[in-house]
Amino acid sequence: MGFEEEASVEEQIQKKCIQKGVTLALAESCTGGEIAARLTKVPGASAYFKGGAVVYHTESKTKLLGVDAKIITTHGVVSTAVAEAMAIGAKQVYGTDYAIATTGNAGPTKGDEDAALGTVCIAIATPEKIITEKFSFGRNRERVIQKAVNKVFEMLYKSIA
Amino acid sequence: MGFEEEASVEEQIQKKCIQKGVTLALAESCTGGEIAARLTKVPGASAYFKGGAVVYHTESKTKLLGVDAKIITTHGVVSTAVAEAMAIGAKQVYGTDYAIATTGNAGPTKGDEDAALGTVCIAIATPEKIITEKFSFGRNRERVIQKAVNKVFEMLYKSIA
Repeated sequence: MGFEEEASVEEQIQKKCIQKGVTLALAESCTGGEIAARLTKVPGASAYFKGGAVVYHTESKTKLLGVDAKIITTHGVVSTAVAEAMAIGAKQVYGTDYAIATTGNAGPTKGDEDAALGTVCIAIATPEKIITEKFSFGRNRERVIQKAVNKVFEMLYKSIA
Repeated sequence: MGFEEEASVEEQIQKKCIQKGVTLALAESCTGGEIAARLTKVPGASAYFKGGAVVYHTESKTKLLGVDAKIITTHGVVSTAVAEAMAIGAKQVYGTDYAIATTGNAGPTKGDEDAALGTVCIAIATPEKIITEKFSFGRNRERVIQKAVNKVFEMLYKSIA
């Protein structure tokens, strides 16, 4: 992953964002605020981290981030299309250079989603492009959330150029 | 605090909200998503938890939650007035019965706030009223955040009737 041994990934991300002078916003569904909580544990996070929307319910994705309800109906709430729209929405609402979005089904019940348990879609919007990825993280709720958070940090660190 | 010994406070809050049929939203500044992350670690949280806004920067409090910029200018961003406006904003945006907001200065630097290090304001909007409290949680960043989270859980549990 290329992180320096002595610093946590959150510290490395903060250092890189500040060095590059870029800002970050989040749109978290299945990760439920865990990414924001971990980034803001590092002193000085407000220098690059503008904030995030925890959009746990389908309707809040539309209300807070302006995700078109048709995208949700067409693709399902756990989909790369919705993750992409969430990232674009967060980037616009918070006015940042980067935004990362998560939408998934951490289980143990299926909730209001059609996707299989453990499915997580992650999207990152950079100044130039949007990258989306779809993962299958198993059936253990805590582990699904932790794996999603780790993957977000990995994608984010790689993307900041 | 009256919580049952065998269940975590998050589990007790979830149980009580579902029993009473009420919904919850959050507006987190100094707690940075930690409250949302802890509530959504409990399976079934989506039955009552609608979502939260992590509004780490001053401007996002206005953009996402509709907090009047004049309130921030007049009272400072770490104030009971701003906490109250954030709770009202979150309750409206997410359309919930209850909303809790935190704004504070966890340090170690003062950031864009005038308030003393360790100052945290918490507001809870219920269907009938709004309660605000102002605390002084010391100078250790991690402990300020944890004390704020614990206080939020205590206020929330007591308020749900």
